[in-house]
Amino acid sequence: MHSLNVSLNDRAYPIYIGGGLLNRVDLILRHLTSPRVAIVSNSTIAPLYLATLAEPLRAAGVKLTEIILADGEQHKNWETLNIIFDALLAERCDRSTTIVALGGGVIGDLAGFAASCYQRGVPLIQVPTTLLAQVDSSVGGKTGINHPRGKNMIGAFWQPRLVLADTDTLKTLPERELAAGLAEVIKYGLIRDLPFLDWLEANLDRLLARDAAALAHAVERSCANKAEVVIADELETATEGGRALLNLGHTFGHAIETGLGYGVWLHGEAVGAGMRMAAELSRRLGWLSAADVTRVCSLLRRAGLPVQGAPLGAQRYLDLMGHDKKVVAGRLRLVLLKRLGEAVTWDSATTADISAAIEECCHE
Amino acid sequence: MHSLNVSLNDRAYPIYIGGGLLNRVDLILRHLTSPRVAIVSNSTIAPLYLATLAEPLRAAGVKLTEIILADGEQHKNWETLNIIFDALLAERCDRSTTIVALGGGVIGDLAGFAASCYQRGVPLIQVPTTLLAQVDSSVGGKTGINHPRGKNMIGAFWQPRLVLADTDTLKTLPERELAAGLAEVIKYGLIRDLPFLDWLEANLDRLLARDAAALAHAVERSCANKAEVVIADELETATEGGRALLNLGHTFGHAIETGLGYGVWLHGEAVGAGMRMAAELSRRLGWLSAADVTRVCSLLRRAGLPVQGAPLGAQRYLDLMGHDKKVVAGRLRLVLLKRLGEAVTWDSATTADISAAIEECCHE
Repeated sequence: MHSLNVSLNDRAYPIYIGGGLLNRVDLILRHLTSPRVAIVSNSTIAPLYLATLAEPLRAAGVKLTEIILADGEQHKNWETLNIIFDALLAERCDRSTTIVALGGGVIGDLAGFAASCYQRGVPLIQVPTTLLAQVDSSVGGKTGINHPRGKNMIGAFWQPRLVLADTDTLKTLPERELAAGLAEVIKYGLIRDLPFLDWLEANLDRLLARDAAALAHAVERSCANKAEVVIADELETATEGGRALLNLGHTFGHAIETGLGYGVWLHGEAVGAGMRMAAELSRRLGWLSAADVTRVCSLLRRAGLPVQGAPLGAQRYLDLMGHDKKVVAGRLRLVLLKRLGEAVTWDSATTADISAAIEECCHE
Repeated sequence: MHSLNVSLNDRAYPIYIGGGLLNRVDLILRHLTSPRVAIVSNSTIAPLYLATLAEPLRAAGVKLTEIILADGEQHKNWETLNIIFDALLAERCDRSTTIVALGGGVIGDLAGFAASCYQRGVPLIQVPTTLLAQVDSSVGGKTGINHPRGKNMIGAFWQPRLVLADTDTLKTLPERELAAGLAEVIKYGLIRDLPFLDWLEANLDRLLARDAAALAHAVERSCANKAEVVIADELETATEGGRALLNLGHTFGHAIETGLGYGVWLHGEAVGAGMRMAAELSRRLGWLSAADVTRVCSLLRRAGLPVQGAPLGAQRYLDLMGHDKKVVAGRLRLVLLKRLGEAVTWDSATTADISAAIEECCHE
């Protein structure tokens, strides 16, 4: 078992990474305020893993409420959030109840946002079961829901008390979701960890074959990178760099997700295509070479990710990107690559260059 | 103009109290992150005061979005919150946009909660226009909406950057709302400031006549009391006393509001009747004398507040109170009075005593 510590100002929390952690009820019990837990999961994950997590908790005397939601990004909305609130209120869960998010990024975002605003805030434990959630969304405290006009538009920063990343759960992950998770893993290499990018190129086949040691290493290295960034800029208030760098490919990607309707592309798939767009735009600014862009595309392709954007047309992309949270005082702020392994925030790209990069990445 | 400072850990914010403050655009401008403001108000307040606030801001070059909601506690729900989100997104308000809440407690709670979760948090300025909002809800960072199963069940702690309490706005306040605000003013005397309780008994007629100096004094003394409590216990995590003491009468009062449906009684009216119930229960525990309870009732009556609870029946009260946020680990925690001017949190009152106190206060 690997462990990391996220040392934030007035709260610090551990991340445990390894196999067989769902059973390790001792790790959970020490973080509860009272013997009262509400597990939020979905109809795909619950049949696979809920009992493994729930039975030892029940045996330890914890009163459990189980809230099983429909699976999919299209359910990351107010209506689903309200199902959580209804259940918590029906079961008279009070402020000492800990919400446990068992599932992927959507469950983590929904349950995390519910924890942030149920009775103005209750404790949260993240138990991510997808690669994407283990390397990204479960760490750092971002929670939220989508709005018809934009992704993650409504939400909160709400840090968990504990993140339990059981890598055994990755064995049942569909291939497409494994690839989507790898997009975020590759992202850490691109934005701040060139040696990790090299490691990924050398070990991608082991990851695709779900080699346990390789997966655990990739999750740990990703979480370590994310934790360093989050500690330095918890609330994304840095005016340059900081937490915003984690959004490489995300502004382009969000346009794809919103433009097609949530759930058509997986988040990681959209980020994959978005990272290629960011790389292409970086090339146009003279920062990356054509060979660098080819290297990025090649790794994304090997991971099983799309490198072509959805054909929405550049104008539609720009329009959708204008709603993004990365707009600061009216200017679109993108994350681009100064070189492989070093990202920057940049608000001076011209509309012509952005459009050209999008078009370049939307056809073969 | 009086001013107070709320010195919280990593944020401190000023409260300005006095006449003619709506015009003091200089006080607002220095707290903006960018020249972009969304004013949230309601259909009662906007015709009276929106232009006074908005025109000088526009003249100073601020781009303004005006969001006018229906008036009333029954609109403090998700649907109304979503009207705010829709407008902010339609106008492409970004993270540097400051939300200004112009109105009473409902507007402050709605706009404050919207500020806490729009794009995971934007700056907030409170411009309270009712006595209740000036002495209570605009200070301390509690925001939220109601749920059919309970009041303020969904929300966040979100501190404003500035509170601007223009006492001139109290001149147009309906009598019933003035009385409702006085309930919270009287509360500060009861829970922690006996000299202020004495002052209120001596000066209540001046307050009812809307004497400007008396109102300014009452608002300032109330805010000073609230600020002291909030600074000591920002997130209501103290296990005894602390911020919870501000809820004197509120658990009983919330039962009335929820039991009758939001908006039938004003919040302050329900708190008034609830404070009498708390006083009556404190008498049964041997802490207050019958004369003390009479003194409380007399002041509430003079202020124009109901001292009879809504006749829901004690069992219905208990049932509704069981959903309250003041339930900790399954035990109902009430705020009671050890003596006039000193409140305590208490979770050992028997159901029989609570029921008897409720019944006693539900008929003449």
